[in-house]
Amino acid sequence: MTSTLSTARPKIDETHLHAAPRTQVPERLLLGPGPSNAHPSVVEAMNYQPIGHLDPAYLQLMDEVQSLLRYTWQTSNPMTLPVSGTGSAAMEATLANTVEPDDVVLVGVNGYFGHRMMDMAERYRADVRSIHKSWGEVFSLEEIRAALEEHRPRILGLVHAETSTGACQPLEGVGDLCREYDCLLLADTVTSLGGMPLFLDEWKVDLAYSCSQKGLSCPPGSSPFTMSDRALEKMDRRQTKVANWYLDMSLIRNYWGQGRTYHHTAPVNMTYAIRAALRLVADERLEQVWHRHRACAEQLWAGLEDMGIFCHVPHEYRLTTLTTVRVPDGVDPKAVTKAMLADHNIEIGNGLGELGGKVWRIGLMGHNSRPENVDRVLAAMKQVMGR
Amino acid sequence: MTSTLSTARPKIDETHLHAAPRTQVPERLLLGPGPSNAHPSVVEAMNYQPIGHLDPAYLQLMDEVQSLLRYTWQTSNPMTLPVSGTGSAAMEATLANTVEPDDVVLVGVNGYFGHRMMDMAERYRADVRSIHKSWGEVFSLEEIRAALEEHRPRILGLVHAETSTGACQPLEGVGDLCREYDCLLLADTVTSLGGMPLFLDEWKVDLAYSCSQKGLSCPPGSSPFTMSDRALEKMDRRQTKVANWYLDMSLIRNYWGQGRTYHHTAPVNMTYAIRAALRLVADERLEQVWHRHRACAEQLWAGLEDMGIFCHVPHEYRLTTLTTVRVPDGVDPKAVTKAMLADHNIEIGNGLGELGGKVWRIGLMGHNSRPENVDRVLAAMKQVMGR
Repeated sequence: MTSTLSTARPKIDETHLHAAPRTQVPERLLLGPGPSNAHPSVVEAMNYQPIGHLDPAYLQLMDEVQSLLRYTWQTSNPMTLPVSGTGSAAMEATLANTVEPDDVVLVGVNGYFGHRMMDMAERYRADVRSIHKSWGEVFSLEEIRAALEEHRPRILGLVHAETSTGACQPLEGVGDLCREYDCLLLADTVTSLGGMPLFLDEWKVDLAYSCSQKGLSCPPGSSPFTMSDRALEKMDRRQTKVANWYLDMSLIRNYWGQGRTYHHTAPVNMTYAIRAALRLVADERLEQVWHRHRACAEQLWAGLEDMGIFCHVPHEYRLTTLTTVRVPDGVDPKAVTKAMLADHNIEIGNGLGELGGKVWRIGLMGHNSRPENVDRVLAAMKQVMGR
Repeated sequence: MTSTLSTARPKIDETHLHAAPRTQVPERLLLGPGPSNAHPSVVEAMNYQPIGHLDPAYLQLMDEVQSLLRYTWQTSNPMTLPVSGTGSAAMEATLANTVEPDDVVLVGVNGYFGHRMMDMAERYRADVRSIHKSWGEVFSLEEIRAALEEHRPRILGLVHAETSTGACQPLEGVGDLCREYDCLLLADTVTSLGGMPLFLDEWKVDLAYSCSQKGLSCPPGSSPFTMSDRALEKMDRRQTKVANWYLDMSLIRNYWGQGRTYHHTAPVNMTYAIRAALRLVADERLEQVWHRHRACAEQLWAGLEDMGIFCHVPHEYRLTTLTTVRVPDGVDPKAVTKAMLADHNIEIGNGLGELGGKVWRIGLMGHNSRPENVDRVLAAMKQVMGR
């Protein structure tokens, strides 16, 4: 058939054919909400040919990634692995696998990503409830207890590190409350993993997700996911198939586990990258990683204060990975971010959602969390704003 | 809070901490069903720092990817873009965006991936119907017409290139039938894009997906997706939200389109890679790409025949990208694939599903489709099988 057709083949349309130049990427210092710059050794680790996703050499890399990810998150969950997509895919995986229609899912909304969690849970036909705080504030244990008592959810979702507000939701004690109310605890750690103290098992977190391009100093595309045995039990008792094939952990676990059964082709080079990134955390050790992020954040906050610019979040709840900075009166925030990029090759982020136009977002995450970068961003801001 | 807590912090558990060696990847010639080897220039293009997904330089790369993808697929669909995941994510995107509960979806099943399509469509609560052929056979226009007449589907899904069987389903004329029956035509082109003639617009295909790691000579992780205006209309008339947040094209189009509204963080370095891969197709031109794949496939088929080994699929329906080879009587197929990998660093694939144990799968895709690779795989097979 094909060979017969070759003579009758339609003419090739070259409308969309154009000469694209060789890849040229400007050198940016990425101090926005992410992606951050990758560590040079991580970029280098991508610079290999892919191998087969069932190659014994690849299976070995997978095991190493799982183990190092457990260390970085401080969990012993067997189901700890990177999802084949960016952070939002890992986020969706937590809900897709555990939510069944009409399950009550309670979400603490104090920023953009709480809203996203609600939106996702609704798509899996959950009965979604929410509690709210102003963007930049966090929930107290008492508020969480009252909400659990009122809504009796199957899952409580909280954003540990709200990338839109710069606030850190304390999780100590929340897991105990969730056990008391027979509910799973789901935590967004997108902007905390590899940057801030996280003790998933100690805190009794049942479901968590993150990304590669922030605290892990890796390009985006391979995203940490973990679920506890309690969460697995809920998945295993499902009456319906997981309503998402690509992210179905009841299938994916057979590939990452003993069976090594093919599910989908792995993003092989991204696995090289995240493995190299997790190696960096292991080499430096978590204590030092967390300490470094705090020291650089304190340096940034002090420098901003010297310029008469203030942080949006009270000191005790600030993320050390991402700082929301109040735009001073009379300053056009987007003109500043544009000039920072155009004149200094530094990316900082604009405000998102409710904080749009009110704050900038400055990230010091992973390999970028270094004193010289703090100096560079402060100097550039001074120059751009004439302070 | 964080600073107060630092004294009361739990002890860090080092159970999962281990010294992972530097990345070491064996040099494989990947002649299985995928991934194939990446072109050196594609691997090199990944070797840059990520930049922001709203950086003007990145937006420019996105435009180039879209345009070159339209050329490669021979479509003018505005909604042509790479999905942030591997091929199965793009596959799921076609169904997730267009299927509403109780829509009749008719799938032509003549291999593994037809079954996967059914499984996915069911998860989006479609009323799934199917027609079947033996693994390795294809459907005739008459059979397709009869099935459309009987089932009156909203979507007809066919696998253009069945990776599990090596058969090519002709699509000429199918699009006209689908218009006649007011149905969308969905085509799996995972193993044909960048290797075999595809004329999506000419053939009136409404939805298609592919992957990066086969005909495009790119690592896996960025996966072509396209939908026609007819498919978009169906999506826009939905009564319910797309039941998958990460793949929701009604949101994603605002990022790829004029608005540039943030949806999810893009897998930036994978975008560098697929752009470089599509550039190769543009530089070589489609005619030559398709011709090269056919010439190498014919060389392989002739060489196998000389060894007394036969192809599973009749010549006229064979994929030129992936050949299913019948395992001769008395030969242990897995022992051969193992020896090919261990002794020759060549990966070929085992049979899948119904063809498990009955065939090998030999891929000559993208940059790997070269005469010297055909010689290498034939020589290795001869040596391993003692022929």
